[in-house]
Amino acid sequence: MAHADAQNARIPVAVLGATGTIGQRLVALLATHPWFELVRVAASERNVGRPYAEAVRWHIGSDVPDAARALPIMPLEAGPDLPVRVAFSALPAAEAERCEPAFARAGVYVFSNASAYRMQPDVPLIVPEINPAHLAALATQRAARSWPGALVTNPNCSAIGLTLALAPLARFGLRRVLVTTMQSASGAGYPGVPSLDLIDNVVPYIDGEEGKLESESRKILGAWTGDAFEDAPVRLSAQCTRVPVREGHLECVSVELEQRVEADEMVAAWADFAGEPQRLRLPSAPLHPVIYRDELDRPQPVLDRLAGDGMTVTVGRLRPCGVLDYKFVCLSHNTIRGAAGAALLNAELAYARGLLGAENRSAPA
Amino acid sequence: MAHADAQNARIPVAVLGATGTIGQRLVALLATHPWFELVRVAASERNVGRPYAEAVRWHIGSDVPDAARALPIMPLEAGPDLPVRVAFSALPAAEAERCEPAFARAGVYVFSNASAYRMQPDVPLIVPEINPAHLAALATQRAARSWPGALVTNPNCSAIGLTLALAPLARFGLRRVLVTTMQSASGAGYPGVPSLDLIDNVVPYIDGEEGKLESESRKILGAWTGDAFEDAPVRLSAQCTRVPVREGHLECVSVELEQRVEADEMVAAWADFAGEPQRLRLPSAPLHPVIYRDELDRPQPVLDRLAGDGMTVTVGRLRPCGVLDYKFVCLSHNTIRGAAGAALLNAELAYARGLLGAENRSAPA
Amino acid sequence: MAHADAQNARIPVAVLGATGTIGQRLVALLATHPWFELVRVAASERNVGRPYAEAVRWHIGSDVPDAARALPIMPLEAGPDLPVRVAFSALPAAEAERCEPAFARAGVYVFSNASAYRMQPDVPLIVPEINPAHLAALATQRAARSWPGALVTNPNCSAIGLTLALAPLARFGLRRVLVTTMQSASGAGYPGVPSLDLIDNVVPYIDGEEGKLESESRKILGAWTGDAFEDAPVRLSAQCTRVPVREGHLECVSVELEQRVEADEMVAAWADFAGEPQRLRLPSAPLHPVIYRDELDRPQPVLDRLAGDGMTVTVGRLRPCGVLDYKFVCLSHNTIRGAAGAALLNAELAYARGLLGAENRSAPA
Amino acid sequence: MAHADAQNARIPVAVLGATGTIGQRLVALLATHPWFELVRVAASERNVGRPYAEAVRWHIGSDVPDAARALPIMPLEAGPDLPVRVAFSALPAAEAERCEPAFARAGVYVFSNASAYRMQPDVPLIVPEINPAHLAALATQRAARSWPGALVTNPNCSAIGLTLALAPLARFGLRRVLVTTMQSASGAGYPGVPSLDLIDNVVPYIDGEEGKLESESRKILGAWTGDAFEDAPVRLSAQCTRVPVREGHLECVSVELEQRVEADEMVAAWADFAGEPQRLRLPSAPLHPVIYRDELDRPQPVLDRLAGDGMTVTVGRLRPCGVLDYKFVCLSHNTIRGAAGAALLNAELAYARGLLGAENRSAPA
Repeated sequence: MAHADAQNARIPVAVLGATGTIGQRLVALLATHPWFELVRVAASERNVGRPYAEAVRWHIGSDVPDAARALPIMPLEAGPDLPVRVAFSALPAAEAERCEPAFARAGVYVFSNASAYRMQPDVPLIVPEINPAHLAALATQRAARSWPGALVTNPNCSAIGLTLALAPLARFGLRRVLVTTMQSASGAGYPGVPSLDLIDNVVPYIDGEEGKLESESRKILGAWTGDAFEDAPVRLSAQCTRVPVREGHLECVSVELEQRVEADEMVAAWADFAGEPQRLRLPSAPLHPVIYRDELDRPQPVLDRLAGDGMTVTVGRLRPCGVLDYKFVCLSHNTIRGAAGAALLNAELAYARGLLGAENRSAPA
Repeated sequence: MAHADAQNARIPVAVLGATGTIGQRLVALLATHPWFELVRVAASERNVGRPYAEAVRWHIGSDVPDAARALPIMPLEAGPDLPVRVAFSALPAAEAERCEPAFARAGVYVFSNASAYRMQPDVPLIVPEINPAHLAALATQRAARSWPGALVTNPNCSAIGLTLALAPLARFGLRRVLVTTMQSASGAGYPGVPSLDLIDNVVPYIDGEEGKLESESRKILGAWTGDAFEDAPVRLSAQCTRVPVREGHLECVSVELEQRVEADEMVAAWADFAGEPQRLRLPSAPLHPVIYRDELDRPQPVLDRLAGDGMTVTVGRLRPCGVLDYKFVCLSHNTIRGAAGAALLNAELAYARGLLGAENRSAPA
Repeated sequence: MAHADAQNARIPVAVLGATGTIGQRLVALLATHPWFELVRVAASERNVGRPYAEAVRWHIGSDVPDAARALPIMPLEAGPDLPVRVAFSALPAAEAERCEPAFARAGVYVFSNASAYRMQPDVPLIVPEINPAHLAALATQRAARSWPGALVTNPNCSAIGLTLALAPLARFGLRRVLVTTMQSASGAGYPGVPSLDLIDNVVPYIDGEEGKLESESRKILGAWTGDAFEDAPVRLSAQCTRVPVREGHLECVSVELEQRVEADEMVAAWADFAGEPQRLRLPSAPLHPVIYRDELDRPQPVLDRLAGDGMTVTVGRLRPCGVLDYKFVCLSHNTIRGAAGAALLNAELAYARGLLGAENRSAPA
Repeated sequence: MAHADAQNARIPVAVLGATGTIGQRLVALLATHPWFELVRVAASERNVGRPYAEAVRWHIGSDVPDAARALPIMPLEAGPDLPVRVAFSALPAAEAERCEPAFARAGVYVFSNASAYRMQPDVPLIVPEINPAHLAALATQRAARSWPGALVTNPNCSAIGLTLALAPLARFGLRRVLVTTMQSASGAGYPGVPSLDLIDNVVPYIDGEEGKLESESRKILGAWTGDAFEDAPVRLSAQCTRVPVREGHLECVSVELEQRVEADEMVAAWADFAGEPQRLRLPSAPLHPVIYRDELDRPQPVLDRLAGDGMTVTVGRLRPCGVLDYKFVCLSHNTIRGAAGAALLNAELAYARGLLGAENRSAPA
């Protein structure tokens, strides 16, 4: 593939919901992206017309990227003169539900981090290393909905980390999975969780999260049969908590497998795991989607969340479980691999597969 | 029982390891105790001779109790002229291993929070609401070891909370239990966990903790057969983590039961649970050893750890588990119910049962 | 004074803004108050009619007091049939501005924690140990405004701690004061400060706070001349920051005094300081409004905020200042001494002075 | 200067105290350094002989740099066969006092972050943008001590941030400075501050820190007269506190100036500030040693500490002070600009000035 000169003619893209926490991450990741060029930022009405740098309350260190500073906030409308055929959606669920189909109808390929359509029967829920084949559902989707564009979703932040840790074990037969999450504050956006809830405290409840983690994981690990998604037959149960951490979801997992395996086979399965993003050398793909650390006390959010520039899931502490077969701990960066980077990687996969339409495909090559 | 006038002639007691975090809690709880009077504080060599208020770096709010301020730190030795027949041990495991038998040999009833002897075949590991009958092992212990005194232990802080949440469910048959703990910094004592490990971080490892939680829980929920302890047949698996919380261990639990029960039967089992401490109205016994809260987001450390003055375990979020039968969350105050208050309640139980010897028994009545 | 039998006929009181952080503190403090009985809770429209225990999201540990649980939320209106002549206001400034005069007009003595009227020329801004004489302004206020009731305010949380630390030094002549505050999250109410602003962070800005701290302190330390408040001639400059602490405002202070004094004279001035609340033994008055601690590293929020049940200011670290004369650190509990307890103590002072009207004055005696 | 091909023959350097927090930062910064090559790591006895990657408990994210992993820990001895003429010292003060002269005596140029010799009359205490002329003292030092090597120190972490914020104002005449610091946990190393001291807490005391901040700042802002250091005549007073932040010291400063200046002149002074590191384009020099931010609530540790890769001090909130002339807030990364990066920049300056000896000077050019 000839991506090297893509710089010369990058694909114009938009970010919907650009002022929120995930929108900011997208803006930051796009600032130096070799294939995509951010040309439009859209957000809710009250900010429309203001330059992005003024409208945003920037949270992710240092400054708004120069290329985005002056972009005027546009309304969340998919008018006929849209300058993009690719949009990343970091909208809240309710707004996503309303806006995303309008963009798809206007010919835009929407890569959405929102939960609104993830479980729809014709909407692929993609983790590119795990289920790239689910993109085949787009043909069905576009036909059924008469969309010139399309809608591709990425999972909830806690489901991405879990499924990337589980997918390499699928060869051993995943039978049952119990997971307790310790999720960071950024997962709730900004203002999000009040500080009085997280100073000297843990909140053992995140609205709707356990259901999403369970159902999305089964869809991701499942199959596209040609006309429907079939859940993986794994039984999953989650307890989700919020801890005083800025970024990084830690998950304590117990698994029951169909086959008897040794611990070192599992470690090898993680270490060897790779998928299309690695084969296609997608710009946001980490060298290793999963790494296993031997130290007794890893992974830890503050030490491991930026592994692979935030795109690698770190696994550790594999040991036998007295109730199921094995237990281990995994960690993923919830706003990079778990959100903004996930949407971006999905778009890169779609582009590399030639799914973004002829106009775009020719552009960067 | 005629404890009311106990004030007049309280039983003299010692605290071993009085300057540590748990030692301080013991000193604080004893300051206003109706039956026991703190007359001796012992600690490691370097502090011997200094007044307690000078030797201690007080951590638990406000000030060292007046009655303890001037007590001189004594060495950890059980000389012949000991002024006490009851001692509370808050020693580190290695020191406990060395010192506690010497005190028992000198005729002292040692109520220990240390892990050194908890799993010994003749040492009772007591949670008074759960297994007061295990005190019967003391006869065996004292005979076998020729001790005029005795050694009674209380469990690890994470095991106390878990077993108090599980014991009321024992009637339904406990088959399998998976637990992930989020433990507070005070559980590691002082200086304990460095702040660089807990600012913006969670550490998914506590040395030796998972093994203790699993094995101690089985002993506590098990039986004393007359000459041995028999573990409860429950299968248990734990993952233990350290979170940025001062006090209060939160535990996410999944259970499999032998009987089919409705959630409200479980809630009723918790609400109705009481034991000897409640029947005997022991001074440190909470009205309810376990309470169940209906709110979606409880228990939380900062809101619930002081329930029942830190002696009540709070349970919440009971719901079906997709892998085992039910899942729920429980919380206990790790340095009160999980340590200092536990040792104290054990001593109160022993006293009320007349086990502390004639001299003492007559004193406070 | 014969307050002992006040229990029999306590004065009925209301809390305006009862569901907020400070409202909750007031409800908690009133639950066991010997003179006042909470009979009415008022809050914003959306909660009207709901029982207090349902409408409130309780933040301050354990549970809503039993006596308040069933009280229905009433609207913030001062109708003719008000069952109270005393109300505590924990309203936000904008609502306070609108509602408080209406209550005063309806004959209610309003003890307000809101900032809306603090700096009005006829509204006393009281710290009872410092400027009880300012209550004399009420006569002017009631006459000028034709109010059968009255309005008494307490200062901003950071000003109360500072002025209580400064007032004992006033005898040495306060010339210049520089203060940097480290204020807790609870000072911003709930939801207040987002956790992403306080995990691993300090925010060196609190909207409007520096101005309030400077101007209110001068008014409190000043005089009521008979027809106007005269600011104390001290020069004050403040820098206010928000730190990851739940409760307790820490302040680093440098002072320049007119007289040359020794450090021990200043320590003695703090230790000996007392005022009308102590002389009158008001129920919420701490034995010592200010205590000085000798330890090198005190005061600290977690260790000292509950001194005197949260009503005592702790001072420490007095030492020469290379720029002004002396520097020291002080700490106060911002939602007790700095807000709810402050309003309560003001009401107790007014009652003890016979200012609450004949009907009330006779009631509890 | 022809540094471009320095890569080919980098100067071999050692890190003394390589396993500590600052030692780790040095190892990380040296991993990609264009002039210096880390060839030796030294640490205390108990680690000698172990590969660096095993001996270190790595704290600063991701992993030990590959180039350093296998380096064996060497003892802290300056034998005759030392392979380096440049060493960075991150030793604790007591060890530094013992070891550093031995290395200088062995011909090594020691760039030390330790406090042991900072205030010695012949030891330069350098912030390269402020007082590069102080390096002239090395001639005196080497002559007087008969050292073939030399000792150059960098200031305490809190003094570097303050002096970089003050130096641009020196043209207006610095008369008096009051500063309150909010210092991060990493400033105390590892294990450093116990988490029980920083969860929900601030500690208003750091042993020895206030004296260092005051005296070092006067030395840095002062002059080398040719045979002695002369303190700047500014009066300085500091209050130092520890806050629950990982990295980044925030300082609230009030200044009195000899000249009357407008705020925008001060902002311009900061914005225009540059020094030899910028003129010489030293590898670790930030483009701007100081930046001023206009936002009301900046600088903040989590947002601004990595400005200029951690080498830029961020200033904000300039406004008139009611006691002195102006007040403002500044922030610096305490383990980069305040420690490891400071030592490194000092060495770069010395090298660029040709002070590291002929052998070395020729090497990278």
